[in-house]
Amino acid sequence: MNYSLSQVPERTTQPRNSGLTMVMDKGLSLRETEDMLSTSSDYIDIVKLGWATSFVTPNVQDKLAIYKNANIPVYFGGTLFEAFVVRGQFEDYIRVLDKFGLEYAEVSDGSITLPHDEKCMYIKRLAERGKVLSEVGSKDAEKIFAPYKWIEMMQAELDAGAWKVIGEAREGGNIGLYRSSGEVRQGLVDEIIHAISAEKIIWEAPQKSQQVYFVKLVGTNVNLGNIAPNEIIPLETIRLGLRGDTFATF
Amino acid sequence: MNYSLSQVPERTTQPRNSGLTMVMDKGLSLRETEDMLSTSSDYIDIVKLGWATSFVTPNVQDKLAIYKNANIPVYFGGTLFEAFVVRGQFEDYIRVLDKFGLEYAEVSDGSITLPHDEKCMYIKRLAERGKVLSEVGSKDAEKIFAPYKWIEMMQAELDAGAWKVIGEAREGGNIGLYRSSGEVRQGLVDEIIHAISAEKIIWEAPQKSQQVYFVKLVGTNVNLGNIAPNEIIPLETIRLGLRGDTFATF
Amino acid sequence: MNYSLSQVPERTTQPRNSGLTMVMDKGLSLRETEDMLSTSSDYIDIVKLGWATSFVTPNVQDKLAIYKNANIPVYFGGTLFEAFVVRGQFEDYIRVLDKFGLEYAEVSDGSITLPHDEKCMYIKRLAERGKVLSEVGSKDAEKIFAPYKWIEMMQAELDAGAWKVIGEAREGGNIGLYRSSGEVRQGLVDEIIHAISAEKIIWEAPQKSQQVYFVKLVGTNVNLGNIAPNEIIPLETIRLGLRGDTFATF
Repeated sequence: MNYSLSQVPERTTQPRNSGLTMVMDKGLSLRETEDMLSTSSDYIDIVKLGWATSFVTPNVQDKLAIYKNANIPVYFGGTLFEAFVVRGQFEDYIRVLDKFGLEYAEVSDGSITLPHDEKCMYIKRLAERGKVLSEVGSKDAEKIFAPYKWIEMMQAELDAGAWKVIGEAREGGNIGLYRSSGEVRQGLVDEIIHAISAEKIIWEAPQKSQQVYFVKLVGTNVNLGNIAPNEIIPLETIRLGLRGDTFATF
Repeated sequence: MNYSLSQVPERTTQPRNSGLTMVMDKGLSLRETEDMLSTSSDYIDIVKLGWATSFVTPNVQDKLAIYKNANIPVYFGGTLFEAFVVRGQFEDYIRVLDKFGLEYAEVSDGSITLPHDEKCMYIKRLAERGKVLSEVGSKDAEKIFAPYKWIEMMQAELDAGAWKVIGEAREGGNIGLYRSSGEVRQGLVDEIIHAISAEKIIWEAPQKSQQVYFVKLVGTNVNLGNIAPNEIIPLETIRLGLRGDTFATF
Repeated sequence: MNYSLSQVPERTTQPRNSGLTMVMDKGLSLRETEDMLSTSSDYIDIVKLGWATSFVTPNVQDKLAIYKNANIPVYFGGTLFEAFVVRGQFEDYIRVLDKFGLEYAEVSDGSITLPHDEKCMYIKRLAERGKVLSEVGSKDAEKIFAPYKWIEMMQAELDAGAWKVIGEAREGGNIGLYRSSGEVRQGLVDEIIHAISAEKIIWEAPQKSQQVYFVKLVGTNVNLGNIAPNEIIPLETIRLGLRGDTFATF
């Protein structure tokens, strides 16, 4: 820190098990990646190459090398997993992960319909080779599950070997955990928190009001995801009670 | 591509006549321009220096050289054309285009009132020296034309020598083709598509929902414009059915 | 300018006393800072390191050196002042300002409750060591003051030695001077303009519609604040009547 302030809440430090910030990279150039790391590497715990952007982004190997050099794990967005699965190319997907040296993988069913047993089977299979983030919640605004369903699925996915479960929000923050306005489905969140250990959940929270909501509810060291590169520093101040929104919280 | 996926729709390749992505540069630095090209040059077909930003941006010559080196044509936004015309400086404008070596020029009447004959005369004149993009639709939310008027104007402008006609949306995507909420005027779009060849139209579509709408309606290789630099990679995944929004489309 | 256009309104030049653009830096990397200056240094009059972002941003000294080298003054956001004051560490705050060589300081009470006398005392104290920007308006949407209250406070803060007073909007532009929709509280603004000299006020106006509103109301050389780095060039065109929104204004 650049100067001393008393009574600032304590943050976990890397490698973090709670208080994780998961960043969404949707096509940064190599130099932009370096720029982000130069200001925020202490605050980034894991990076997602959003959905299937890795398919069309050149120099992915070079980008992965930059992240590796900064000791920040990277995974491909769940939509890519789904794109392989829906084409019957799951074995190819494992080869892709191996080729790129990715320890982490996401399993999701936001765009495809997957019997939950089958989803858990994919989690189990991928958990044998590395860490799995499994995502719950559809990208389809019409598919709304009751809270007990969310909890059942999350628990089953953790039992199947998932390292963390992710609550879906998309890049925009307007689905899954949220209404189309971006407002939090508070009843849903309360029930999940009651049932699942906080450190096992990553809440996708791309909008500031969503980040503020979770920091107030769960605390400084809540796990948050889908953070945009230029919102990492601002989020850190929210976690520490040093932005107006959480100023009076700690 | 970084790995193989079956059943991905076929994209046209550069130089494209359809499937164009027109990018809006509203003041990128030289290094930011290089960064954008390093990730996206294969997906950028033409760049617009938004409205009159070229008036106040330093190093425009250097920026044009970077684009030229990447074989990407550049043009100045139509508002600049209008700024010259309204001041009676049209001949000066041609000298500016010549000085900067710009083959492409935009003709529009989004901010000024121009009899349509006169607009077509400007198109004709500029088409003698290079390619013309002509834009239909006002920046004034109160000026709403009936679909048959849009079509008449677009056809007349193509007849006058325009290379492509552009459907107006502004940087925000909340005018012309769209309601102030950003929602597509679907009836208008349907009528235009029925009457004008798809490859002659560039749809300004800065918002993701607008891009998704046109990719679903026209297909992978629809011409889209006013794309922000950090949305080029995401748009490419939308075109290929590799983002949630168009996942089931192809 | 890259070419000549007649009848463009006259802008003040650096160092400006009116027509100021205050830019919000909420965590730019060193290279991003350089990029911004390479395109916009002529249009940036003062930079704010937003709220307490300076606490968590690495290399702040290096960043300050870059701004110093470009002759652009920098100050820390008012929330940081408040964070020190609420902890009874005001003397520490002065030492921080001295350590970083910052001539400018902001005094605000957006997140804390401060008797107005006390606020003016802080202004007086800091005005002895450098220039003070004092901010009026709460970050709390429920705290709404009548226009005469705004004017009284602004006048008292200028009397206490503030160099400029700032009308609060936050990064989002949805509080203080604005309704939660971002719409300007026009009655409030009209009364303030009537009572306080325009060159003494900096209006926070992060949204384009807000910038357009103030340029139309006050003129080309209105003081505007909380401008995002990639909106500096666009704002300059709005000031000059070279964007659709103010095209017919000058």
